[in-house]
Amino acid sequence: MVPMTVKLPKPNLQEFPLERAFTFVESGPVILVSTSHKRQKNLMTLSWHTLMDFEPTLGLTLGPWNHSYTALLETGECVMAVPPASLLTKVIDIGNCSGSQVDKFKKFGLTAQKASLVKAPLVADCLKNLECRVVEHHKDRNFFILEGLKAWHNPTAPDQRTFHAVGDGIFIIDGETIDLKRRMTKWQHCI
Amino acid sequence: MVPMTVKLPKPNLQEFPLERAFTFVESGPVILVSTSHKRQKNLMTLSWHTLMDFEPTLGLTLGPWNHSYTALLETGECVMAVPPASLLTKVIDIGNCSGSQVDKFKKFGLTAQKASLVKAPLVADCLKNLECRVVEHHKDRNFFILEGLKAWHNPTAPDQRTFHAVGDGIFIIDGETIDLKRRMTKWQHCI
Repeated sequence: MVPMTVKLPKPNLQEFPLERAFTFVESGPVILVSTSHKRQKNLMTLSWHTLMDFEPTLGLTLGPWNHSYTALLETGECVMAVPPASLLTKVIDIGNCSGSQVDKFKKFGLTAQKASLVKAPLVADCLKNLECRVVEHHKDRNFFILEGLKAWHNPTAPDQRTFHAVGDGIFIIDGETIDLKRRMTKWQHCI
Repeated sequence: MVPMTVKLPKPNLQEFPLERAFTFVESGPVILVSTSHKRQKNLMTLSWHTLMDFEPTLGLTLGPWNHSYTALLETGECVMAVPPASLLTKVIDIGNCSGSQVDKFKKFGLTAQKASLVKAPLVADCLKNLECRVVEHHKDRNFFILEGLKAWHNPTAPDQRTFHAVGDGIFIIDGETIDLKRRMTKWQHCI
């Protein structure tokens, strides 16, 4: 890390094609969204999501072009799961086939585990699972707001790294972890 | 990376405190939001944001507790900037002081560069800059929807790594980059 006193390199901003600028922020961790609808469980891969409150409250962008859309809308429930980097290839392949044609848990050898509060299954192979219910759906924006109901983690999983999409089919795996707790002077009440 | 045929490790899900589950998804790249209001430019640090469309359209959660809130609301404009890992300490310190008391560009030695379409300055030391205008404000959710107007990047910056917040003052720097373009069979039209 560069100490505060190091001189910054000379900036060199160049114009960038606006239609590719979505890649700037397409880098939350890639997640799986698990649903169960009419006795069919399903998974989708998603990287357009945000935290909206500590409670926790999440926002997800997904629309009718996703097979999981109807399940999420009609059941009002899902599980948000954060996969480890060791599942990267599977997770991308999950995002490139449709639950209308395949049983994704079976095809990709993932472990559907009964959740506590929702019918959608936990993805037990993931690092984190959050049982969620839909609290708002903004149809015009294809935006769902979810409230987390119950959380699970997997602290003994051998690979704790997550990964991020940065557009174009390029993914970045977590690298070095830096602890800056002591610098979070304004937000001590949140940490 | 684990090939598709490798047996998955035995899952071991454990319950996790719901009130800490926000850390599961608090890991989009940490960004700076630059504003200009009544001739005062300012910066804030934010990790609660999502992509909402390819155009690009972004969602940001920020509220009246942020000094930048009034500027964003009253001007309807900002610049979203993605800092490199080499600026990690500065960016965290920017998030732990208030623009009501300091000129953050000056204090942290960052380069405010005139933007094309908005009054908020570009942060020329950042890897990416996106000039944005507010298109919706959902006051009840402290949620702003922004439309990107013009994008800039900094391809010669020596450190192209971004970083992600994972709660508790812990940050993760980008590690290995994996190219899976050839597996994006369903989404070729988007890449």
